[in-house]
Amino acid sequence: LCWAGVCGGIPDPRQRESLIQQEASRQTGGTVLLTEAEQRLSALLHKLKQQEVEGPQFPPAMHFFKALPLIQRSPVFSLLQKMPKGAALHIHDFAIVGVDWLVKNVTYRPHCYICFTTTQSVRFLFSAKKPNSHPKCSPWVLLQTLRGKVDNTTNLDTSLMQNLTLFTDDPVAAYPSQDIVWSRFEETFMAVIGLVTHAPVFKDYFYEGLRQFYMDNVMYLELRALLPMTYELDGSMHDRAWSLKAYQDVARQFVTEHPDFLGARVIYTVHRGLNLSEAKAIVEEAMQLQKKFPEFMAGFDLVGREDRGRPLWYFREALSLPAELGVTLPYFFHAGETDWEGTDVDENILDALLFNTTRIGHGFALARHPLAKELSRKRGVAVEVCPISNQVLKLVSDLRNHPAAVLMSEGHPMVVSSDDPATFGATGLSYDFYEAFVGLGGMNAHLGTLKELAINSIRYSSLSPQLKDKALALWQRKWDKFISENSQ
Amino acid sequence: LCWAGVCGGIPDPRQRESLIQQEASRQTGGTVLLTEAEQRLSALLHKLKQQEVEGPQFPPAMHFFKALPLIQRSPVFSLLQKMPKGAALHIHDFAIVGVDWLVKNVTYRPHCYICFTTTQSVRFLFSAKKPNSHPKCSPWVLLQTLRGKVDNTTNLDTSLMQNLTLFTDDPVAAYPSQDIVWSRFEETFMAVIGLVTHAPVFKDYFYEGLRQFYMDNVMYLELRALLPMTYELDGSMHDRAWSLKAYQDVARQFVTEHPDFLGARVIYTVHRGLNLSEAKAIVEEAMQLQKKFPEFMAGFDLVGREDRGRPLWYFREALSLPAELGVTLPYFFHAGETDWEGTDVDENILDALLFNTTRIGHGFALARHPLAKELSRKRGVAVEVCPISNQVLKLVSDLRNHPAAVLMSEGHPMVVSSDDPATFGATGLSYDFYEAFVGLGGMNAHLGTLKELAINSIRYSSLSPQLKDKALALWQRKWDKFISENSQ
Ligand SMILES: [Zn+2]
Ligand SMILES: [Zn+2]
Repeated sequence: LCWAGVCGGIPDPRQRESLIQQEASRQTGGTVLLTEAEQRLSALLHKLKQQEVEGPQFPPAMHFFKALPLIQRSPVFSLLQKMPKGAALHIHDFAIVGVDWLVKNVTYRPHCYICFTTTQSVRFLFSAKKPNSHPKCSPWVLLQTLRGKVDNTTNLDTSLMQNLTLFTDDPVAAYPSQDIVWSRFEETFMAVIGLVTHAPVFKDYFYEGLRQFYMDNVMYLELRALLPMTYELDGSMHDRAWSLKAYQDVARQFVTEHPDFLGARVIYTVHRGLNLSEAKAIVEEAMQLQKKFPEFMAGFDLVGREDRGRPLWYFREALSLPAELGVTLPYFFHAGETDWEGTDVDENILDALLFNTTRIGHGFALARHPLAKELSRKRGVAVEVCPISNQVLKLVSDLRNHPAAVLMSEGHPMVVSSDDPATFGATGLSYDFYEAFVGLGGMNAHLGTLKELAINSIRYSSLSPQLKDKALALWQRKWDKFISENSQ
Repeated sequence: LCWAGVCGGIPDPRQRESLIQQEASRQTGGTVLLTEAEQRLSALLHKLKQQEVEGPQFPPAMHFFKALPLIQRSPVFSLLQKMPKGAALHIHDFAIVGVDWLVKNVTYRPHCYICFTTTQSVRFLFSAKKPNSHPKCSPWVLLQTLRGKVDNTTNLDTSLMQNLTLFTDDPVAAYPSQDIVWSRFEETFMAVIGLVTHAPVFKDYFYEGLRQFYMDNVMYLELRALLPMTYELDGSMHDRAWSLKAYQDVARQFVTEHPDFLGARVIYTVHRGLNLSEAKAIVEEAMQLQKKFPEFMAGFDLVGREDRGRPLWYFREALSLPAELGVTLPYFFHAGETDWEGTDVDENILDALLFNTTRIGHGFALARHPLAKELSRKRGVAVEVCPISNQVLKLVSDLRNHPAAVLMSEGHPMVVSSDDPATFGATGLSYDFYEAFVGLGGMNAHLGTLKELAINSIRYSSLSPQLKDKALALWQRKWDKFISENSQ
């Protein structure tokens, strides 16, 4: 009749305490042993978090665009910014740098043309001479010329920035539905692409991205990258391999200049809008790139809105090619970024695992897939949790209800990442760590949780065992410094 | 290297199918065998649900007050209305009858006085002579007199109804926070209480409640009841035992008049605002009532907003009394009706189990308590899921993110109930069944899910084994009729 302390009406307080402890030990970081200094910092974090819980507004329950100023004033957030967070494992190539840098730096470079689309957006192009008109866009005009004509360049720059991000003061009104927020999301991408595919900007952008993550105390990136063709001022083009090589060169240069940074690897991504034969060609190209850049390329993924794209199973013949040929092409699939349980898209979760994915991007639907969840856990396939992205793209409003809160309470393999921070008005990883720590984790999450999340980002990275050891040692030095500086 | 069909890159389609089937079999109703006729109806439901998923607006993703007219037009809903749903196991005494009945029937009875509070609400009182003024309320006026003076009694009646329910056209504006919606919720209760504690109304209200659930194809109720003192026109009062006896008499009368209805039992509830010594006295009173009405009284519970009330552990000395005395007093605790993970309130989940609760009311937080979840499952302690209540009281907005969706995917013991349907503008159980079937269950939930939920409501009821058998036999006859009439 008795089981785990439950006998029938008179609980034993000691058994109660033991059950609470047992449950607490299951959560992410639940078995991490903390030093005395760490325990002091953990107690401080607990106290600060309690104050946010008791405050008049609780940021994780609010839309991130509304919560942002509150988070920036949060002492929990400022500790998280200083904390060495390890690696950013789920971020996309053209949304890692704050859009103010794009406008203030890139659009002020010479030869930058702009046109205004019929959809109230903009397109950019660098060109030595005036380019041919773009369909559904006004004639191209040099930004330098335009800035000379307007009264207030600050206003112009602000409006340019608004075209490059989803960030807005009134997200509820601006994005009433998932369709609308996704179409605006894709629109920001179209506005950015002309800037960042200009070959010199392509390199500078990545360098600046590394710098912004480095400043946010992130030490290694795995970048999901479309590797588009890039162009020069004279219109000449570079191929995918050039892009990959450019990233590699920039990462090496950055590491040389910042020896406490570990570098980056690239997950080659392609939009899921393609058909099967296109997918086969792309997978073959991916295998070639993987062979050519075995150290720098981490693997392959499909991107774009899952709910509207083709499911992984549709691509099965393409995705089986590497295994059939005995070629290594690690997968890092986006899967289960959906509220639609029981649809084809929802099955991506299982299919990602069947195709031997290394990690699961988002895995928002995983908690509702008990068998896939067991598979993911037993095989150590970590979920890349991106809370702000899921909220902005309208999968969940109050982040306390994010399904990864369940995964966290079970200690499911997971890492925290930021997906497209620039598009969401964030930078680096700290904002998503805040949401994960305060919102998803609730009062149960403590410094051990944060420590395990940071270590997870190295453990579940695509790095070789040797590089993982190196990364962990580097991270541990940073961590010890962080603890000693913040545990007075 | 291979586990459950995952080997490394080339999934076997047959194994994939088997994994999908295995996972599907785990969900609520996943192992229910359907007859051919049931399979036809299940296929129809699947098709109709698919149409709702593909429609421009998806009711479970919307606030119930906005979704209501869409749900009323839904062919899925109309099938769920006809479906024999078994028992309503989580409903509260004074929110089971549509407020139109209260206004159109009860307030038109003679001797009904009204006053208008300083908080823009109303109070009612039946009295043979004009009663003394109520604090913070206008002088009492006979409704009959008032109706004679106003131009438009329809407008008056509409405004009265608005005081008795939370239902409104613009819930986002009306209830910006959980504090506000809870205070309005308690305000509706204060407005209703003067009507329903008038002794004759008390009986009629319960009769009408049974009738409305019966009309919604519910065959048995377990009513959480405050058992307040009731009053007569001359101001004389009846005690708690009178209220319990009155419910018993009404239930018996209703069963006599409707032989295919099984009746009701009462869970005596008290507001959690009391202190420990008050709680001890109440638990003693509950034991006496339980002894006096062993057949009709099911047990005991604490009600009121968990997030603001005292946790179960505070009441441990009171709640241990029955076990210490060797007296049977089954508990049916509300627990985990909160978004605040890791707080004292959140521990109610575990404490409810430690105090040997028979079911868990709401258990919204259960999915984030892996150990308590195992306890609940192994001990067959069902969760009473009330989706609309949780949405209206602002625990979750999009019901696809309701944590019971996770529990459902795991086949956790659960029943669906409606908490306070009248306050939320609903009736009976069908609306909550709709949200559970379409929202929480997604495209995975099928007729087997519904069948198991209905059977669960009998299996997890407080009925004796003999009465459960009787109830199941009665339900099965209704079910067979429902299937034969709707599987053409
Ligand atoms: Zn992504
Ligand atoms: Zn309730």
